[in-house]
Amino acid sequence: MSKVKITDEFWKAEQELVRTEVIPYQWDALNDNVKDAAPSYCMRNFRIAGEVNKKRKEAGYKEIKYPIPRDKWEFLPGNSENDTFHGFVFQDTDVYKWLEAVGYSLMNHPDPELEATADRAIDIIESAQLDNGYLDTLYAINDKDLIFTDLRDKHELYCFGHLCEGAIAYYRATGKRKILDVTIRFADFIYSWFVEGGIKGYPGHEIAEMALAKLYKETGNKKYLELARYFVDHRGEQPYYFDVERAVPLGERNKEQLGEVVFYDREEKTLRYHYNQAHLPVRKQKEAVGHAVRGVYLYSGMADIAAMSGDESLKKACEELFDNIADKKLYITGGIGSSQAGEAFTAAYDLPNDMAYNESCAAIGLIFFAYRMLNMDVNVKYADVMERALYNCVLAGMAKDGKSFFYVNPLEVNPKRIHGDERMGFVKPVRQKWFGCACCPPNIARLISSLGDYIISEDKDTVYTHLLIASDIDLGDEKGSLHINAELTRDGRVEFDVKHRKDFKLAVRIPYWGRSFKVIRNGNPVEKNELDIKAGYMYFDISSDEKIVIDYEIKPVIVGCSPLVQENTGKAAVMRGPFVYCLEEVDNGENLHLLKLSDNPELTYENGVITANGMRVNTQADSDMEGGRDTENGGDGLYRDNLYNEYKPETYKPVKLTFVPYYSWANRGENEMTVYVRV
Amino acid sequence: MSKVKITDEFWKAEQELVRTEVIPYQWDALNDNVKDAAPSYCMRNFRIAGEVNKKRKEAGYKEIKYPIPRDKWEFLPGNSENDTFHGFVFQDTDVYKWLEAVGYSLMNHPDPELEATADRAIDIIESAQLDNGYLDTLYAINDKDLIFTDLRDKHELYCFGHLCEGAIAYYRATGKRKILDVTIRFADFIYSWFVEGGIKGYPGHEIAEMALAKLYKETGNKKYLELARYFVDHRGEQPYYFDVERAVPLGERNKEQLGEVVFYDREEKTLRYHYNQAHLPVRKQKEAVGHAVRGVYLYSGMADIAAMSGDESLKKACEELFDNIADKKLYITGGIGSSQAGEAFTAAYDLPNDMAYNESCAAIGLIFFAYRMLNMDVNVKYADVMERALYNCVLAGMAKDGKSFFYVNPLEVNPKRIHGDERMGFVKPVRQKWFGCACCPPNIARLISSLGDYIISEDKDTVYTHLLIASDIDLGDEKGSLHINAELTRDGRVEFDVKHRKDFKLAVRIPYWGRSFKVIRNGNPVEKNELDIKAGYMYFDISSDEKIVIDYEIKPVIVGCSPLVQENTGKAAVMRGPFVYCLEEVDNGENLHLLKLSDNPELTYENGVITANGMRVNTQADSDMEGGRDTENGGDGLYRDNLYNEYKPETYKPVKLTFVPYYSWANRGENEMTVYVRV
Repeated sequence: MSKVKITDEFWKAEQELVRTEVIPYQWDALNDNVKDAAPSYCMRNFRIAGEVNKKRKEAGYKEIKYPIPRDKWEFLPGNSENDTFHGFVFQDTDVYKWLEAVGYSLMNHPDPELEATADRAIDIIESAQLDNGYLDTLYAINDKDLIFTDLRDKHELYCFGHLCEGAIAYYRATGKRKILDVTIRFADFIYSWFVEGGIKGYPGHEIAEMALAKLYKETGNKKYLELARYFVDHRGEQPYYFDVERAVPLGERNKEQLGEVVFYDREEKTLRYHYNQAHLPVRKQKEAVGHAVRGVYLYSGMADIAAMSGDESLKKACEELFDNIADKKLYITGGIGSSQAGEAFTAAYDLPNDMAYNESCAAIGLIFFAYRMLNMDVNVKYADVMERALYNCVLAGMAKDGKSFFYVNPLEVNPKRIHGDERMGFVKPVRQKWFGCACCPPNIARLISSLGDYIISEDKDTVYTHLLIASDIDLGDEKGSLHINAELTRDGRVEFDVKHRKDFKLAVRIPYWGRSFKVIRNGNPVEKNELDIKAGYMYFDISSDEKIVIDYEIKPVIVGCSPLVQENTGKAAVMRGPFVYCLEEVDNGENLHLLKLSDNPELTYENGVITANGMRVNTQADSDMEGGRDTENGGDGLYRDNLYNEYKPETYKPVKLTFVPYYSWANRGENEMTVYVRV
Repeated sequence: MSKVKITDEFWKAEQELVRTEVIPYQWDALNDNVKDAAPSYCMRNFRIAGEVNKKRKEAGYKEIKYPIPRDKWEFLPGNSENDTFHGFVFQDTDVYKWLEAVGYSLMNHPDPELEATADRAIDIIESAQLDNGYLDTLYAINDKDLIFTDLRDKHELYCFGHLCEGAIAYYRATGKRKILDVTIRFADFIYSWFVEGGIKGYPGHEIAEMALAKLYKETGNKKYLELARYFVDHRGEQPYYFDVERAVPLGERNKEQLGEVVFYDREEKTLRYHYNQAHLPVRKQKEAVGHAVRGVYLYSGMADIAAMSGDESLKKACEELFDNIADKKLYITGGIGSSQAGEAFTAAYDLPNDMAYNESCAAIGLIFFAYRMLNMDVNVKYADVMERALYNCVLAGMAKDGKSFFYVNPLEVNPKRIHGDERMGFVKPVRQKWFGCACCPPNIARLISSLGDYIISEDKDTVYTHLLIASDIDLGDEKGSLHINAELTRDGRVEFDVKHRKDFKLAVRIPYWGRSFKVIRNGNPVEKNELDIKAGYMYFDISSDEKIVIDYEIKPVIVGCSPLVQENTGKAAVMRGPFVYCLEEVDNGENLHLLKLSDNPELTYENGVITANGMRVNTQADSDMEGGRDTENGGDGLYRDNLYNEYKPETYKPVKLTFVPYYSWANRGENEMTVYVRV
């Protein structure tokens, strides 16, 4: 990845924001040093676990204070002052994700001070690892004899996965092996426990699958790929392992902690563990269900394994799952997971705007999945989804100043409704400083820091450019180098400056928003029928230095939605290039639902803002004749108070509509927002 | 009430259904004899409390087994086999509401067997009353020394209120005093505890206020009105009594049971107890907030007290609260309480269709409130709301066979979405047999059985007819008698046959749906300018036998909604007379959101069904050109996959729309339903 240097003004600024604001802020958060924010307890847990480890060794591996009785385990953020584990069961991952972001950031921008801080963090992490290689502060602190007894809900393998991703990024950036070795010891222990121990379990929250694939790629040790495949192959087998582990008596088990969180299914009571994507063997899964982040993390791992081992049946399952999401369960912003209940996928075409969950992490996971699909089959549909999620849902997750974040990314917000209804309390009209369950901010940080990874992919003789982001790319001795010059916020002109070393092919994506384009190769226009286009990419044979300019027509457009999406019938969104736009109250006044785009409106783009001619429904405040009801009887109510009078359709007055990019919403105080507007 | 005999075919059938199906069914439910339904535990609790009482007396008022330690109290329906209290804290009310329905039913239709069953129930209830008059099985069983220590959440005064309403109805029907005397003893005990004891508490769940007003009216004893006023006057005073009672140490208190349930309010942290309408003194409450049933029960009590004591400031508060509901928080069906969270009112104009809560009991409470307002000021706006709730939300709560019930009454249902999303699990697409929290079925039963109460009201020289329901009414020696002949399901002709005894005025309501009408008095047409119309009622001086015929023009009409209701912009509903109509999948095919009314559609009414010409959005299934997206690139997805192509508005094909009355929905299996349709 270090060979891709982003030079794009827009994205470089985002990367700088992560480096200068998010990463330092996150470190403070991990150490509970952010005022007025939910404490993380993360580093505190590692320190306590290190202490426990040390005492245990000093006592000749005898337990002194521990294990802690099960009902004294501290799972959730509380005010308890005792020296046990605090926070969510997956709290360890906060530092792992931070470490991953640090790794990527150091590749883009060396920073000795940051590196020294990370080295100290790694020492603390290492101190918590047991002699046998196991590493999870929840069990290390509370009771090491209960490890891996609750795979469904206790997230040890999820923590391992993030450790692994963080360790590899940091090792690649610095060449320092310590955290990688910690990871390898833990991975070897997991391998011995499951594969050698014959325990057919698998993670309750997936990620270990794709992390192990990466570890295999990094180390060349096949056992890690074997372990990843082991998890994937046993998933959803009958009898369900999650039932099996519950059949083991565990005296201390607290009923409440183990309370079932299963996908709601009134119809087919026999189907279970949808929530964890463990309801069926993975190759039989055709529909994306359950917890959305878990889903796309699993599918990403499946895609890795399919690619690395040429497993066609697994690849086919990935394709079906991807298409199911893209065709039936994807918001226009690239968000996924419609429901707060279970943070889950729901029925096909069920995409509510105001009650959308759309966790930032789920959109990030979708990018992981799409990128892996792209590496198996270069098809523009994967890159289109990746780009959609990146430029909209993911980017909206972070404030312009990098200091606050969205966990939930609705497509429509009315603060009055949210404040008046506890049911909508999960939707925040402004970004939050930090979360007790702080998965999203560090996930955004690691994605943006590693964005170079997603711009191109390569095989032996071809370079594929997926994202149209200005960058300098070293393609190595077998190809040469490539400079991409682009700035999509400005225009659709994308230049490819190729320095040839050996012959190769350059494949350039034709995005869904840029299907009208002109190609100028070394100063000469190329006709479309002369182009070699396959699956949405144009292929150029490179046998000398070249300058290829693609002029994509980028313009503001109206985008409808399948009529099967109930929420959006009679509505449409506005886009320009990959950017989805939205209306905000600060520009358009309150009650955004009263606005309507005019027929054949003129859309004008200037300085990032789109304006269009529109209409606004007249209300009582505008005249004495209100929408569907008359007021001749002095009524001030909801409904016509004389049904004998004719129904009067709504009347309108002309207004100017101002659209801003969705990613930039809620940066000017609390206000209404909507992506979809009536047409 | 017994002087109003309903002869209306439509409503008589509903009353018969309650008498022959609901009341016997309820009795089985109260005794846990309904298979596959949630047990009530109600009569079981009374029997246990009776046993405890008996043992206590036998032991010379010494406690033997009781009190039961606080953590062994059984609050919620469970499988525990011990002989303590089971069910919700308000489980006693199940039998009280049943008794009330029985009382009304006996007035309409004597039934010695039913009366004997009720007498046995009364004996069991009485056996549970303590010597001091206190009666609530939760505390009688568990610990009589903790009574009235948790007014906010433990519902003893709510149980009292329902006892009182049930006792009065039964006494009026049968003349038997036993249950009335039980009530009076409990009322006297409450009076001594609060008024004489100087404890400034008030009910966490209101109803005692209006029940005490009724007891005052029945007994003539002013102390009951004083007690009602005491509760109303102290409500919302600072310091909040609910805080005060929590400041009292109660060693056994379980933190979880006492967990705060307060109205969600991020902005004004100082405002509390919205949920219980105890955030402000009642005279300062301008907006209906919190739990909707509690709200309208309180407002009803306030209206009773205002009327009985001529309290103008209280009356003004009632008027403001009523207008706030009617103008800003009322569904077209008469449903109130938009949110499941807290079963609560939400912000003004926040009336979601699919996520509506609209508890049946809340609509019933709104009828109580409206009727009481009507008795203070005869204004058609109160009767209009009463009728709206009765003919739609309330009636929809019960299946056509009287055997299943809705608790929640949405205006739009898509079973696919509900089954795919746990968040929507509270919305049931078909009626349920019984509920653990069984407030709604008996509440519907008691309202329909007592419907005669709501048809007319009287003062010294005037009879006001509010509901246009065929009935025989004995107006007594001071006036005469009245026969109303009407059948709104057939036509709008309403005949008033008056037998004159002494002179009086007859006031006839002009409903919002019948503002076009003809009057024929004793065979002669009366011109509108000859009519004496005040506040939506026409007044006739009656000085001899008369036949007054009002021919209301009743026709299917399109009804819009204030454009401030976000959900309904660009949509409208269809009504005929007081009946709101809806579309069901069984008549109109799936994906009801694709349907649209044609411009100026022709609405035809026949046999209860309205048909109209409409349009249906074309989808992929209909053609290869789909709504907002093109399919030329083989796309089968959600969004246009080539943004360069022009946005294509939706296309339609003509269809016939079939509307059925809202109250009758979901009687033909599980299917989609919607009240609002695009226009």
